[in-house]
Amino acid sequence: MHENMNVAVCAAFEPELLLEQLRLLGTVGKESTAGRTRLALTDADREGRDTVVGWMRELGLAVHVDRIGNLFGVLDGSSSEEAPLMMGSHIDTVRMAGHLDGAYGVLAALAVLRAFRRAGVTPPRSLVAGAFTNEEGVRFQPDMLGSLVTAGGFPLDLALNRLAMDDGARLGDELKRIGYAGEMEPGALRPREYFELHVEQGPVLEDEGRQIGIVEGVQGISWTRVVLSGAANHAGTTPTRLRKDAGYAAGLIITGVRSIAEALETTVGTVGSIGFEPGLINVIPSGAELTVDLRDPDEGRLLEAERRLDELLHEVSIRAHVDVRSERLVHFAPVPFSQELVAMIERLAEERGLSHRRMISGAGHDAQMMARIAGVAMIFVPSAGGVSHSPDERTSDEDLIAGARLLLDAVLQRL
Amino acid sequence: MHENMNVAVCAAFEPELLLEQLRLLGTVGKESTAGRTRLALTDADREGRDTVVGWMRELGLAVHVDRIGNLFGVLDGSSSEEAPLMMGSHIDTVRMAGHLDGAYGVLAALAVLRAFRRAGVTPPRSLVAGAFTNEEGVRFQPDMLGSLVTAGGFPLDLALNRLAMDDGARLGDELKRIGYAGEMEPGALRPREYFELHVEQGPVLEDEGRQIGIVEGVQGISWTRVVLSGAANHAGTTPTRLRKDAGYAAGLIITGVRSIAEALETTVGTVGSIGFEPGLINVIPSGAELTVDLRDPDEGRLLEAERRLDELLHEVSIRAHVDVRSERLVHFAPVPFSQELVAMIERLAEERGLSHRRMISGAGHDAQMMARIAGVAMIFVPSAGGVSHSPDERTSDEDLIAGARLLLDAVLQRL
Repeated sequence: MHENMNVAVCAAFEPELLLEQLRLLGTVGKESTAGRTRLALTDADREGRDTVVGWMRELGLAVHVDRIGNLFGVLDGSSSEEAPLMMGSHIDTVRMAGHLDGAYGVLAALAVLRAFRRAGVTPPRSLVAGAFTNEEGVRFQPDMLGSLVTAGGFPLDLALNRLAMDDGARLGDELKRIGYAGEMEPGALRPREYFELHVEQGPVLEDEGRQIGIVEGVQGISWTRVVLSGAANHAGTTPTRLRKDAGYAAGLIITGVRSIAEALETTVGTVGSIGFEPGLINVIPSGAELTVDLRDPDEGRLLEAERRLDELLHEVSIRAHVDVRSERLVHFAPVPFSQELVAMIERLAEERGLSHRRMISGAGHDAQMMARIAGVAMIFVPSAGGVSHSPDERTSDEDLIAGARLLLDAVLQRL
Repeated sequence: MHENMNVAVCAAFEPELLLEQLRLLGTVGKESTAGRTRLALTDADREGRDTVVGWMRELGLAVHVDRIGNLFGVLDGSSSEEAPLMMGSHIDTVRMAGHLDGAYGVLAALAVLRAFRRAGVTPPRSLVAGAFTNEEGVRFQPDMLGSLVTAGGFPLDLALNRLAMDDGARLGDELKRIGYAGEMEPGALRPREYFELHVEQGPVLEDEGRQIGIVEGVQGISWTRVVLSGAANHAGTTPTRLRKDAGYAAGLIITGVRSIAEALETTVGTVGSIGFEPGLINVIPSGAELTVDLRDPDEGRLLEAERRLDELLHEVSIRAHVDVRSERLVHFAPVPFSQELVAMIERLAEERGLSHRRMISGAGHDAQMMARIAGVAMIFVPSAGGVSHSPDERTSDEDLIAGARLLLDAVLQRL
């Protein structure tokens, strides 16, 4: 675009209105003084969608809803030949959520479109602000379903037949019930680029005192369930060397998982759930069950982490005299984003004088699905204390505005 | 006693009847093909007591029941001046128990008295076969209550007012209901020696291929509850160095407890129960709670183990960046038995050609209470696989008979 148009659009950006809309959308589904709950395709989700659609219409955007309920506001460009540039995220939430996760990406996208409108500038290509269905995956499985269907990774019919985990309702029926069963085929609106602005949901930016994270990709994820079988014996009468202590084996695995993460450096490892049988203070555990969550941005290293975990389990079975069985529940390969877009955003952040770093997203995002069909970039802003999925989720206004301005810069640069 | 009398009594010992009585008492409270349940002061316990009383009366013993329901069969000796020699154990059981724990000690005591009767020999001092109330502690707390009250360690009134954990019934009322609220003051029948024959309830004798364990005392016990508080964070987005992982801290404690046990050699350590909060596969645990059971036959080393545990907790709090709170739930000092009696039984086992070893009891027994008022000895026989408190509890007939014969030897030696 012409330089003077860019200046006009930037000047028309309204940071205060973005913050106000974040606050307003944050009141939808609010059950108490803290937290709001807008599980996908509930009445609260409908109310959130209606609110966003209202703001889209105020801007004179064309509103489209596809058959999986993804919601798009389109600002037509001067050329209808070229694929649009899409920004977005989601507005469904977990239970008792903060007001930023997802909503920030959707409303910042609207703020970008609003800046064009206010400046009276028609973009050379269409711009789209999107909100994908069921990103959180709390009510329907799998998570990121709307973007996954869009990217062709999950059949529409199967998706519409998914049943809610809370009340058993069918996804397709719920879409109709709340008035968001659209006509458009998912993926019909196929962008060339997809930009997603999001809170980090981790502590790294805050810890390093940086304002912007430029996301190079999403980590790979490996989940393993481990079942340990030893022998329940009296905690007083059984000498150490004769024990088949499934609890001790669990302890070795927990500390071993940490050692794997530390040795591989880019890997993180978590034992998040555990249980002992019979679970009595004076009985050596006969059984233990635990889960291992391993993540790494590199598929080779993730596979290496899994290999080391399997080796650890074998060593533990020998050392603790217990039987170890394991089941790999999930293996998602890492998703790399566009290095060209990463470099571009890095340069733009530099120009704005924003402190920044490249980073990997530890959490899943719609962007990783859209990476199957578009050039994808994600921008992170700091999360106070690394907290997310909580009413305590917080980012300073300054950081929220800086992120949205950088998104606008990226759009202007890319058009 | 005269040597020829000893020979006569030994010759009159009826091993087959002991095994038969074990089998018969084992049918009382039997609910299924496996296991029997005779919780203290239930109808099943009454039926067990009635059975034992019947066998006492067949032998012409004087039957006494004291106010806490302890049951004694007395074979009067030629001198009524001297304190009697008591043998015994308990006949209450845990749920779905084996047929040996407790019953073996009581019925072997009866077998000893029967040998005197059959031989027509009057012992120089009275011999007593006793069955103490509520040893297991499943229905009423504390366990070993009958012997504890006998030894003056727990006020009778308080004991009678204890309420059952299953149905809230008052202990004193239950004693009356089943007809075992006696008149005798607990402790009125005060023995000079108390001998208890018991299955090991541990794997050591079997593992070493020995027939007899001569118990030098009961281990000290220390129970600690540990509460860990970290921060729940996303398992994907939080780098290792920024984690406050309460689960990792728990793993360090589990393996650290094992290290303490291995370093102190005589100590055993068990983490038997554990729980994580929120307990999700993809969330770093914000909280963990676990219990630590430490035991050692020596009070100094038990205190040292506790000191090392406290040190471990402090180190873990620093290493895992979590807050650690702990509460000592229980500290029972070890109870040493009579070294003179240990040496005597050792010699007798040697004479009988029985393989034997000195050992410490890891479990609690009435003997440890009686050690407050009498010279105490305990003899263990092997438990197959170390299993106890289970229908799978098993000891070979040969071992059961060898143990009872050794008990008889010890009585004859000591009279």
